[in-house]
Order: sequence, then C-alpha cells, then structure tokens
Amino acid sequence: MAAERDWVVAIHGGAGGITRDAPPTHEVQVRAALAHALLTAGAVLDGGGEAIDAVQAAVVTMEDSPYFNAGRGAVFTADGTNELDASIMRGDDLRAGAVAGVRRIKNPILAARAVLDTSPHVLLAGVGAEQFAAHAGLSMVEPEYFRTEERWQQLERARAKSTELPLAALANPIDHKYGTVGAVALDAKGNLAAATSTGGLTNKRFGRIGDSPIIGAGTYADNASCAVSATGQGEYFIRLAVARTICAEVEFGRKSLADAAKDVIEGRLAMLGGEGGVVAIEASGSVVMVMNTPGMNRGSLARGGEPMVKLFADE
Amino acid sequence: MAAERDWVVAIHGGAGGITRDAPPTHEVQVRAALAHALLTAGAVLDGGGEAIDAVQAAVVTMEDSPYFNAGRGAVFTADGTNELDASIMRGDDLRAGAVAGVRRIKNPILAARAVLDTSPHVLLAGVGAEQFAAHAGLSMVEPEYFRTEERWQQLERARAKSTELPLAALANPIDHKYGTVGAVALDAKGNLAAATSTGGLTNKRFGRIGDSPIIGAGTYADNASCAVSATGQGEYFIRLAVARTICAEVEFGRKSLADAAKDVIEGRLAMLGGEGGVVAIEASGSVVMVMNTPGMNRGSLARGGEPMVKLFADE
Repeated sequence: MAAERDWVVAIHGGAGGITRDAPPTHEVQVRAALAHALLTAGAVLDGGGEAIDAVQAAVVTMEDSPYFNAGRGAVFTADGTNELDASIMRGDDLRAGAVAGVRRIKNPILAARAVLDTSPHVLLAGVGAEQFAAHAGLSMVEPEYFRTEERWQQLERARAKSTELPLAALANPIDHKYGTVGAVALDAKGNLAAATSTGGLTNKRFGRIGDSPIIGAGTYADNASCAVSATGQGEYFIRLAVARTICAEVEFGRKSLADAAKDVIEGRLAMLGGEGGVVAIEASGSVVMVMNTPGMNRGSLARGGEPMVKLFADE
Repeated sequence: MAAERDWVVAIHGGAGGITRDAPPTHEVQVRAALAHALLTAGAVLDGGGEAIDAVQAAVVTMEDSPYFNAGRGAVFTADGTNELDASIMRGDDLRAGAVAGVRRIKNPILAARAVLDTSPHVLLAGVGAEQFAAHAGLSMVEPEYFRTEERWQQLERARAKSTELPLAALANPIDHKYGTVGAVALDAKGNLAAATSTGGLTNKRFGRIGDSPIIGAGTYADNASCAVSATGQGEYFIRLAVARTICAEVEFGRKSLADAAKDVIEGRLAMLGGEGGVVAIEASGSVVMVMNTPGMNRGSLARGGEPMVKLFADE
C-alpha cells in the first residue's frame, strides 16, 4: 500500500468583492464563513474522504451562506431572477460535471456532481438541467430562496445606472461583484479535484454564461499537473482558458504552479485587461493563491493545521 | 511593411458521419459541399480578407447545407426541436464569441461573431442569445427551417430504440452523428482564427451542451501557437479541453502541431474512450487533420492551389 500523504484544501469566495470600507461585521462574517468551509472540507479529508467530496462540501457551505455570490445570496439578472452556474472535476480520471443558468436547484454544485456521477454528459443548461436535477433527487427550491435584500439593492442600483438600450448597456456592464466561490483539494490518496459555483453578474442579460461552469476556464483538475478554481471577469477567463492553461504550463512547460499561475493571472490576464484570481494545488501539495485585484476572499487548510483565511491582497 | 504571406484554410464537416455504405450520391454531395466551403473561404482570403471572416464564411456555407449537422440539417433533440451551438475566435487578440442552445437563429456562427464583435460577453445561451441575435439584426427563422426529413427519421429511430426512463436513456446515448462543422484559417497578415458550429446529438435531453460552443474545448485560436476546430464526442473534448491543450503543447511543450494533435487525439482522447478529430493550422501555416475515427469529412486549400477534400481516414 502506498503511504498516506498529507491532504490540503484551498478555497476562494470571490475576488474584488470586499473593500476595507465594508462594515467590519461583514468582514468578520466572511472570514468566519471561509473558515467554516475549510473546516468542513478538512473533516471530509481527515476522515479519509476523496478530494472531490471535500471540494463539494466546501462549496455547499458557501452556496448556503448569504455572504457569497453563489446559491443563496446570488446576484440578480436584469430580469430580476437568479441564474446559477457550477462545475466540478476529478483529477484522477478527468470526469467532470457542470450546470449553467439554473434557477431552482438549491445547491448547483450538487447538480454538477450528479451530472459527473450519473450522466454521460458534462454540461447541462437551463430548464433541462433542472429537470435532470429533479430526476436525480436533489433539493429543488422556489426561486425566492436565493433572494437576499443586499443583492436586490445591487440590482436596483445597477438598473438605475443602466440605459434603456440593452445593447448599449451590454457595452458597459456595471456593479460587477466577483463573489464566485470555489475549492481545490488534494486527498490522502494523492488525487486532486476542483469545484466552482457562482451567481454570475448583477443585471446580466441575454443568457450570459461566464467561466464558472466551463471546464478549462473556471475549473480544471488533472492529477498530472494541478487543480484550479477561478474567480473574476469570466469572459477573460474563458478566452485564456485560465484553469487549463495554468495546468498546461505546469504539465508541458515544466513550470512550478506558482510561476504558471503568476504568468496567467499577473501576466496574460492583466495584459488583456481582465481582473480576478485563482486558488490552485499542484500534485505535490503546494497551494497557490494568486490575484491581480486588491483582494480575494480565500483560505487554506492542511492536515494537522489551522484554517488560514485572508481577504486583502497585501494581507 | 511586412511581406504578404501565403494564406491557408482547413475545414471539417464532422467525424464518423459517413461510411463507405452510404449512397454514392450522398458522398458526392458531401465532397462538393466541402469544396464549396473551401472555395468560399479562399475567395475571402485571396481578396486580402481576415482569417476570421474566412472561417465564418466557410461555416455559413456548411450551416446552409443540409448535409451537415449544423444550421439547416441539424439533428433533433428528444423534444423534437433543433438546438444549435456555435463559437468563433480570433488568434490576434483572443477575442471570442459563442452561442448555445439556440433554436431560431438561421446562422448560429453569425450570432457567435456578433457576440465577439458587439458584446462584452463570450457565451450567450438559449432565448437570451436569440434576443441578442435579433437585436443585432441577424436573420431569424421559424424552427421548421432547420428540419430535414433524414434528420427527423434519425430521431424516430433513436426514439424507437430509447427507453422510457430519461436517466437510463442518458446512460446509453445512441445514434450519435458527429456532423459538426468547423474551419481554421491563417490569413496573409499572419493572423489565425477558428470557428465551429453544430446541431448537437440526436435525441439529446436536459439542455445538454457539447464542446462546440466552448472556447478551449471545440474551438481555440492564438497567434502564439495555433487554431483548432474539433468534432466528435463533445464530452471527452470538454474534459480534455482539446483545442486549448493542443495549442498549449505547441506553446509550452514546443511540440510541432502534428505531434501535439496526435498526442491529444490518438493518445489522450483514445485513452479516455473518446472519438473524434480536429483540423488545425499553426502560425507557420502547416495544416494538420487528425482523427481516431474511420473517417472525418475534411479539406484544405492554400493560396494558388486546388481544394483538397477527403472523407475516409485512409484516403
């Protein structure tokens, strides 16, 4: 039998979503929610659980928390609805599952997991994805479940600033809140996994899908290189295939994960004008958390350690 | 001023969609449609046009042809509808556009192009994508426009073989026809572009989205490496991020495009049990067309040459 290795988990609760002007109570609550997510994933890993179960557990706690733009607390589309996206991937066999544009699934990450486990497909969208989730026995909720007053006020502010012309409004999306959540983990058997979940953009239109449900953009895991979960301006992450590109630099370019993540986030992403960050773990267990924003809600926990939680870039 | 370079375009009309048992007239028609697409793209490039306009023009002709699973002639979902996906990408600035699950846009590739040119987004889905396309002034059609009798018969056969239980049916998708179309081009200025369009899978359910609208999976273009358009079992192409991975092996692994494409299609894809192929062009102008299926409808055309069209792997 192979020796049991140390496990490690890293999470994010979005980049650019919090400032030092935020009420101190809000900051305390976000830090507590991140620590809770880490401890939940850590309990899975400490019990010998799989990396994929750990990242799923961490994301479920953040979907259930109103402090992140995922699950309850998701931002509103221009129609006043919440459209949620999520994806999850195993590093051992590259199986993956994702859902996009769902409005009635309580925990979109569990629907992504069900797609991975029980369907031959990877990505299901809209009402079809909801039908699949209901067939799979997942908790369905009324759309009002996701509503929080703070997110509704964000939509009202965005609407007030927005023009009446949808195409003109598209050219200048406002009130972006990068509160996407995600997790990456390495389990004691040496397997990697990654998961990401989001409520998208405030006031978004036209069925826009960002990077979070896109395997290779917002989420990637491959035992041959690393596991990555991203947060930020999704369009730039799709164009750069951020998660896959970081893993590819490790696999084909023989870079360290830290150098690969910096090249993509501080180099390529910044060069295109995109903002955001990633949390990542390489097969050796090194954790990397890189952003080109003033902050990214994030944390990590390794076997035998305490949760480490940070919000600001210079922290 | 830089010297004008030679241009080249390569296209595919799907892998695994034709056999030597097909009626000879069908084979002749497919070959003629591929040659027409190549000549249409070649005219754009010969006139000094951009690679992105050439790949778009090639794909439009194949969407308009009933002989491919894209635009008119798309396969039917389990609901008896046609749900179309398309994506397009520029290699010079990595801008990209895509639409997924659209039912009323005559040429989905033109909607993908409009997303690239006129929106800050990359991927729009469903009714929202249709609203965007209508706002952008594109031709909208009644859903019946896409219907062909041959595709309807495919659905009837698939339904007859299918079980009543949707989840059980999912576990054994049948009557796959990989008639996806795509194009890659290098223009005289040295810019690459790629485009892909599909009607998805016969009898598909649950809003399934394949690799064709996924930047990094079915489509990728980066002047730093190559342009790729893929066709095949989309789920495997998403899990491997096939198009981005081929370009990444060229960029970071310093492999030739031929070696990179073989590694991904004959190696990684085959290892996972996936079937399909790609057409690709590297920045130097070399064309690669690789498949692990008995055939892939494909062709290429370079400045001053004649269209080269092939259907079978051993041709």
